[in-house]
Amino acid sequence: MALATKAVPHLMTLADLSPGQIQRILAHSYHLKRTAQPWLAPVQSKSGNQAKLKLRMPSQSLFSKTVALLFSKRSTRTRVSAETAASLLGGQALFLGKEDIQIGVNETVRDSARVIGGLCEGIFARVGDHSEIEELARYSPVPVLNALSSLWHPTQVLADLLTLQEHAHLFDPAAPPPPNADDLTSQRYRRLVDVRPLTVAYLGDSANVLHDMLVTYPRLGHQLRVASPENAKYRAPKEVWDRVVQLGCDKNIHWTADPRDAVKGADLVVTDTWISMGQEAEKAQRLKDFEGYQVTEKLCREGGANPDWKFMHCLPRKQDEVDDEVFYGPRSLAFPVSDNRKWTIMAMFDLLFGKWSLLERTKEAAEGPSA
Amino acid sequence: MALATKAVPHLMTLADLSPGQIQRILAHSYHLKRTAQPWLAPVQSKSGNQAKLKLRMPSQSLFSKTVALLFSKRSTRTRVSAETAASLLGGQALFLGKEDIQIGVNETVRDSARVIGGLCEGIFARVGDHSEIEELARYSPVPVLNALSSLWHPTQVLADLLTLQEHAHLFDPAAPPPPNADDLTSQRYRRLVDVRPLTVAYLGDSANVLHDMLVTYPRLGHQLRVASPENAKYRAPKEVWDRVVQLGCDKNIHWTADPRDAVKGADLVVTDTWISMGQEAEKAQRLKDFEGYQVTEKLCREGGANPDWKFMHCLPRKQDEVDDEVFYGPRSLAFPVSDNRKWTIMAMFDLLFGKWSLLERTKEAAEGPSA
Amino acid sequence: MALATKAVPHLMTLADLSPGQIQRILAHSYHLKRTAQPWLAPVQSKSGNQAKLKLRMPSQSLFSKTVALLFSKRSTRTRVSAETAASLLGGQALFLGKEDIQIGVNETVRDSARVIGGLCEGIFARVGDHSEIEELARYSPVPVLNALSSLWHPTQVLADLLTLQEHAHLFDPAAPPPPNADDLTSQRYRRLVDVRPLTVAYLGDSANVLHDMLVTYPRLGHQLRVASPENAKYRAPKEVWDRVVQLGCDKNIHWTADPRDAVKGADLVVTDTWISMGQEAEKAQRLKDFEGYQVTEKLCREGGANPDWKFMHCLPRKQDEVDDEVFYGPRSLAFPVSDNRKWTIMAMFDLLFGKWSLLERTKEAAEGPSA
Repeated sequence: MALATKAVPHLMTLADLSPGQIQRILAHSYHLKRTAQPWLAPVQSKSGNQAKLKLRMPSQSLFSKTVALLFSKRSTRTRVSAETAASLLGGQALFLGKEDIQIGVNETVRDSARVIGGLCEGIFARVGDHSEIEELARYSPVPVLNALSSLWHPTQVLADLLTLQEHAHLFDPAAPPPPNADDLTSQRYRRLVDVRPLTVAYLGDSANVLHDMLVTYPRLGHQLRVASPENAKYRAPKEVWDRVVQLGCDKNIHWTADPRDAVKGADLVVTDTWISMGQEAEKAQRLKDFEGYQVTEKLCREGGANPDWKFMHCLPRKQDEVDDEVFYGPRSLAFPVSDNRKWTIMAMFDLLFGKWSLLERTKEAAEGPSA
Repeated sequence: MALATKAVPHLMTLADLSPGQIQRILAHSYHLKRTAQPWLAPVQSKSGNQAKLKLRMPSQSLFSKTVALLFSKRSTRTRVSAETAASLLGGQALFLGKEDIQIGVNETVRDSARVIGGLCEGIFARVGDHSEIEELARYSPVPVLNALSSLWHPTQVLADLLTLQEHAHLFDPAAPPPPNADDLTSQRYRRLVDVRPLTVAYLGDSANVLHDMLVTYPRLGHQLRVASPENAKYRAPKEVWDRVVQLGCDKNIHWTADPRDAVKGADLVVTDTWISMGQEAEKAQRLKDFEGYQVTEKLCREGGANPDWKFMHCLPRKQDEVDDEVFYGPRSLAFPVSDNRKWTIMAMFDLLFGKWSLLERTKEAAEGPSA
Repeated sequence: MALATKAVPHLMTLADLSPGQIQRILAHSYHLKRTAQPWLAPVQSKSGNQAKLKLRMPSQSLFSKTVALLFSKRSTRTRVSAETAASLLGGQALFLGKEDIQIGVNETVRDSARVIGGLCEGIFARVGDHSEIEELARYSPVPVLNALSSLWHPTQVLADLLTLQEHAHLFDPAAPPPPNADDLTSQRYRRLVDVRPLTVAYLGDSANVLHDMLVTYPRLGHQLRVASPENAKYRAPKEVWDRVVQLGCDKNIHWTADPRDAVKGADLVVTDTWISMGQEAEKAQRLKDFEGYQVTEKLCREGGANPDWKFMHCLPRKQDEVDDEVFYGPRSLAFPVSDNRKWTIMAMFDLLFGKWSLLERTKEAAEGPSA
């Protein structure tokens, strides 16, 4: 357990952060990515190794520290991102799946939070019902970060946003192109560019990824157009919508049951699986309810999307929700987003677990985040 | 496999150690805790980082080394303590649960011991029947430490003892108070204080934790009063009691079937779950047999415990054996014990796996253990 | 994902390597073993620690890097070797078993390869059907190393070969004896000795270990004599035999159904389990088919093996295929082979994942591989 006198910071959803804090996390993610990537390239030779010694190390704020990954469901991307990010920060992730610990079964959530928080320096938790992670945060002596809950998925949306900013030039010909590999590994600092205000369409179930989009995109200047079937279970639950309204985001959200209406003018089309883990029993009903929601060239053409629309998906992907042409085609940013899970999680681990600090973005923070 | 010519040291139970060796392990645990904790605090700033560079590093005796955790049952506290301790010593723990390796099923215990001991530098084993860990130790070329067996649980009792010594002032107003956070992180060395001779009551099943208490507490000057139901299965098995007698501990052990009798004059009341993993089938019978054994204010008042009695539990805890008032109240040392699982396991890993050395406590060792 | 412009190297089987490349890997394994072992010995004292500072570190080419272990079946030796080797190279292994990720089930192999290869710096994969690892290699942006497939097991045969070269003196009185413990830890470089051309008998099923022997031993100057029952399912499949013929190895392979014939003149007798994981249903039939195949003193005497024959087995071992007298006797090299799984996997991780380079053996490479 860390010896600290200030209040323990936790993060459950991006709704808890200001736009300035979100921008600071994105700028810090980009900085960590640029700093760490040269260390991950193949070692070329002895002289190559020595050249590396002149490189800056990424933050080692997790040196000797351990982040517990409390995952009640498996999650390839989130887990691998967390394990690699912890290592790059000088620490380790400790994966505790449902075979290893059954939160709330053999011991109360309260006791587990106190025990694990007394042995590790951070808890990255993927729980079932959102109330479980709230309970963990209530009793943990160290920071708790939401890796995914029934309501929210903040680290996914951070990766989406970083990817959009890195690809600002795809949406605005005036934006500078992304650095090439040599630029990336150079010492020269390059600022993360802001992306222009976008029209973002989301097609599918109202699940945790969308929920964090609802409380975030409008505050960053984007318009959201959401299509989900006319059924309360496919719409945002009250506790989410209350946050949306409280943050004034509802004014920039258009909700429809018609996917064609949703993609109108869309610069970006986003979807997610309709059949999450644990929903296999409802599969037939869901496939029927989401008929016509598959993201395709035809749908977006007919709906009047921006002809240069791009595509994002948090993965794993099934063909039901997007066809191969779009998913593997040039519009798709799905894999860059997947790569960025690591860098955004690394930034959160550094700031939250390593430094207990999620400061606002300032001019200095934006231009030269400290490692 | 380590290249060493001296005999491979193992540890199955505290009965195998002298009081001086036990004291040395406790002093070393405390030293490691004081050395390591500042490294685990949140990184405050650049200058804070630089200040850290002046700090002493804890022993790095596991640098590049791997400790295999052979766990046939899951165990949150022991496992997380082992993984974090190995990391702090510069090495890694490698968890091998029953999904990963089935000791004795697909391969003989002998062959597994030789193979794993040929690839790792230590084996921390949580087995079923105690004979399994004896077999591992017989054939392993590297040290084997008992993480829990049907008979013994040495690392738990080390954590209990460290916690008592750290809280010596709770039992003796003349003892110095524990260091506060600033003292802990200061460079100044502070000796671990001896706790005064205590009357210790244990209420419950005669299981592995109690067994290591039976062979240890009396040798450190404490009186033990044990209550368990009148039934051979709730009393210490012959192989344990033989060690108790051999070490002369029986003279300071009072055994009764009446929990009120047991807590008479108790400075410390200890219990454990009555229904261990694998005993769920006997649950109804056990709840009946242990009726009246729940640790409460009323029981201890009626039994005549020291009014300032404290409470310990190895966790996970169920309400059957202790009520919320005691467990979450000011008498409870349950969570400090849980925190100390890490530091005592770290000391054992350092001494046994890193250095192959469990020397006696000497004046020098007590006052300034080498890192 | 590593930023590199050259083609991503993969390794599926030793058939893909030249004899010079194989020799380079063996020499590099031996070099890493000699460099790393002193770091794994018990720390003796402060001055012992300081002496260690003068030692050479093994290659740290995996510094900050992560190797994903995609294991659809469990595997003690391969896994523990990989985890310890990655640590010695400064990196970490990330074990993803079938509980963690089901390759091809929840996501296509293609997508998983791209995602995991975008987050880690290497993939060490133990798959079911060999086509799965070919698919991984097709889409992974980082190197893929075969940890075991239905067809091949290259890292096992590398450990066998290193063990033979280390024990060259057992087969040739003129060869220098192996270094003793002190020599091993000395700074002085000692060249790995070539073993004389051997007659190698393999008794048992035609499985992945044998397949890599078939494409390798003849190219290194050895004769192979294989006994397997007269049944197509116990003979090498077409895709393996095509590689054998293509490499000209068939000329030095004698195949028989008579184990006595196979061991004729054998300097080394090798076997493997006849009942691999997943074949339990066929157990009775297989025990019958392999009657008379158990490696024993009697069999080898009757068959006319070299009286000084040695024995190897990739483990885990059952009594069906070799009796205790041979397995635990002085002829057995089974455990030295098991130890060498670590050093050969470490060499492959260093060269393939750390450096993307499997160069030919040159005089310089043979005599002083760079760390």
